[in-house]
Amino acid sequence: MTKDEPVAIGVDIGGTKISTGVVHKGQLLSDVHLFETPENIEELLSVVLKAVSDLKSEFDAEYVGIATAGTVNINNSKVTGSTGNLPKGYSGLDFKTIIEAELGLKTLLENDANAAAYAELKTGNAQGDKSTIVITLGTGIGGGIIVDGKLLRGKAGVAAEIGHMPIAWGKKRKCTCGAWDCWESYASGSGYALNAKEMANKIPLEQREGILKDKEIETLTTYYVIDGFYKGDSFARKVHEQWESLVKMGIVSLVNIFDPDSVILSGGMAKFVNFEKLHREIEETVVISKIKLLPAKHNNYAGIIGAAMLAVEKYG
Amino acid sequence: MTKDEPVAIGVDIGGTKISTGVVHKGQLLSDVHLFETPENIEELLSVVLKAVSDLKSEFDAEYVGIATAGTVNINNSKVTGSTGNLPKGYSGLDFKTIIEAELGLKTLLENDANAAAYAELKTGNAQGDKSTIVITLGTGIGGGIIVDGKLLRGKAGVAAEIGHMPIAWGKKRKCTCGAWDCWESYASGSGYALNAKEMANKIPLEQREGILKDKEIETLTTYYVIDGFYKGDSFARKVHEQWESLVKMGIVSLVNIFDPDSVILSGGMAKFVNFEKLHREIEETVVISKIKLLPAKHNNYAGIIGAAMLAVEKYG
Repeated sequence: MTKDEPVAIGVDIGGTKISTGVVHKGQLLSDVHLFETPENIEELLSVVLKAVSDLKSEFDAEYVGIATAGTVNINNSKVTGSTGNLPKGYSGLDFKTIIEAELGLKTLLENDANAAAYAELKTGNAQGDKSTIVITLGTGIGGGIIVDGKLLRGKAGVAAEIGHMPIAWGKKRKCTCGAWDCWESYASGSGYALNAKEMANKIPLEQREGILKDKEIETLTTYYVIDGFYKGDSFARKVHEQWESLVKMGIVSLVNIFDPDSVILSGGMAKFVNFEKLHREIEETVVISKIKLLPAKHNNYAGIIGAAMLAVEKYG
Repeated sequence: MTKDEPVAIGVDIGGTKISTGVVHKGQLLSDVHLFETPENIEELLSVVLKAVSDLKSEFDAEYVGIATAGTVNINNSKVTGSTGNLPKGYSGLDFKTIIEAELGLKTLLENDANAAAYAELKTGNAQGDKSTIVITLGTGIGGGIIVDGKLLRGKAGVAAEIGHMPIAWGKKRKCTCGAWDCWESYASGSGYALNAKEMANKIPLEQREGILKDKEIETLTTYYVIDGFYKGDSFARKVHEQWESLVKMGIVSLVNIFDPDSVILSGGMAKFVNFEKLHREIEETVVISKIKLLPAKHNNYAGIIGAAMLAVEKYG
């Protein structure tokens, strides 16, 4: 291992698990360690401190980058909000001050979608691009946006809330954010199931066939319908095609706004996207120049890698 | 006049008129001259060259900034497309090479909405901001976006095509760009009249009152309905309120994406916006931090001022 570039620890804190690893030149140098996210804030902090401390002594690491769910302030030091699945007290937590005082390691905090976008830019499928949009299609829709090689962070570090572009009017469906008809509420994994239920409810009982036959509509799940789609069910096909066109809407907006080099799709729902078809339809719709549409390279470790690289970029 | 900052000539080329002026430190130093846009490309070029040449000798100007309708290449030298209202041959025109050869003045070309955004940032109502979105609500919807003090130009100089965010699905209304259900097709000045016609057609003949009484629906214009709105007509009020909510949709998307310091509305339709109401509703809807919502300061001269300032920034 050459020491021309510093070694950094990456931490990814989500609602269900915490993962850690050591990163050098944008590549994992260690195994990734996984921990369940504790239910109270003191335990969560002690899990993170212990894991970082262990890696510090083993790998002679100099910096820590933390990718976190929720929003992060513009100084990359503190969690500021939107941390619904994390313990009470998480919002407001000043990781930078705590880790620097306890462990003497320079620390940078970044929103997980932003960290993932940075990882894709530096060592993933957007490598070499100046501008890319990394879209996480999961239970919700998140995003990280790179403009001229830099993360778009906004005035308060809250930019790239791409899931909350309205795509319909008339108050048809309420989003978890409290607003109506956000892209996320239709094109995310949870939106998919809601679309399926709405479409199924319009079919009279006696006409329900295939995956709908004798099925309680309220029990329809995203994966059940997707499974039906791959098995050739005609109702599932309608749901899936509508979902594809809903996914397309938000991407078309983003491409027309940014004229980016690439769009990268990550998250659990990305594997159900027909990239070739979607790419063709986007190119037919947008008014700007051609883009690349690709899956993410770093799916599970993008947060760790991106946050560690951002820490090196800031302090290294 | 101090000479600490160079003097630049600003030119704004639109489909109906060409305007020119001399700019120093972001302020007009001369009167603005107006010319009708000629119908052939040779005449257009000679009008621009003559106007620039005259101002050059009178004001000892060193640079030229040209704001143009349509798209401009990433090197700011050449018009590349989307110039429907300009003479044949305009697309592809290399203004930079021509003016530098003919007049010996360093020349920069920029899309008019981008130039206007830059003017608002530097000496307009976004002064002091790091990030702003300038939205032109006119016959169509255009935009100029500033991120960290710099124009967002995209990989090919085509970014900020904000009018073409889709805001509905199901192919309800075709946009001039060829795609369906773009923001512009509903929330622009032309969209306003189309909305009014659609809403009016749903009212049975015998129930048509106020501004609709004995009115041929196909002859409804935007200004006729807006006039009715200000006079208290109830149908016009419905059209206007729907338009306000359609305008809001696109702004909410942009604010959630950029977390900007400010949003500036310019263009002929901006004066019909109730800024206080719209601002309140945007703040209630977005998931990010507070913004300023303001009218543009430089309405008619923003292109001249912004393009001239961009030329000074590049060459000065």
